[in-house]
Amino acid sequence: MDKKEEASKKIRQVFNKMAMLNASIMASELSEYTPSEVHVIEFIGENNQANVTKLAQGLYMTKGAISKISKKLIAKGAIETVKKSDNKKEVYFLLTDKGQEVFDTHKSLHDSFEKRDEQVFEDVTDQEYARIIEIMEKYSGHLDKEIEKSGLEM
Amino acid sequence: MDKKEEASKKIRQVFNKMAMLNASIMASELSEYTPSEVHVIEFIGENNQANVTKLAQGLYMTKGAISKISKKLIAKGAIETVKKSDNKKEVYFLLTDKGQEVFDTHKSLHDSFEKRDEQVFEDVTDQEYARIIEIMEKYSGHLDKEIEKSGLEM
Repeated sequence: MDKKEEASKKIRQVFNKMAMLNASIMASELSEYTPSEVHVIEFIGENNQANVTKLAQGLYMTKGAISKISKKLIAKGAIETVKKSDNKKEVYFLLTDKGQEVFDTHKSLHDSFEKRDEQVFEDVTDQEYARIIEIMEKYSGHLDKEIEKSGLEM
Repeated sequence: MDKKEEASKKIRQVFNKMAMLNASIMASELSEYTPSEVHVIEFIGENNQANVTKLAQGLYMTKGAISKISKKLIAKGAIETVKKSDNKKEVYFLLTDKGQEVFDTHKSLHDSFEKRDEQVFEDVTDQEYARIIEIMEKYSGHLDKEIEKSGLEM
């Protein structure tokens, strides 16, 4: 196995491990909501004038999937729809007080995960972070082109 | 935003983008199987004497979740159970021909994703890969301790 392969395998393993640990903790603290529902709540809480189109683009999901999830969240009382007085056609989502509580719990769990893992990265230098950012920007641009080529509605 | 925060945000964004693109392609090529089912097939295809316990440990899922998925895969004809002649208690899983086809399709899609993204990493040096491996090993050890502390059955 060359260094590249080894690094890519290790990243995948660590990512899976971290995702599973964090997901278990999230699931026990936010047991009434699926991960997708929490992601939709997170997006609405962080973005002004969130609608189905913006959610689909931001979360890389189809509009159909977003519609389903948002209907469930309305039924659970976590989000509500609003229309502007000068444009009755477009529907936007807002968090209710209950949704805001979910948002806050999710955010504070995320912060606690970051704090928990801080020590792992204490000796990573700013120069190393800058290099990571450079590679990630290249990767992101490459993926945008591939998504366009694939013709997927994401 | 400091370099660390920026890097961690960028990694998250790129990972989500990549996961969603790859998941869409997987879903269209392997439309009869959920991602979890494909992961179970992958694990059984790569590991000798896979049983519920080994699958749960390897995929960081509960034994209950693995049992559910394996029942579905048996119903779909992708895996079958075997017992050793000298130990009738323990049940192992094997891929059927149909399961092997799913395994091969999944593997070849993974290879194609790697090839597709190769150019992004062409200028990453062996020294940089070695540093990534070092950080990932530290992270992995840290997460193992956290999983133990959490008392989660994973």
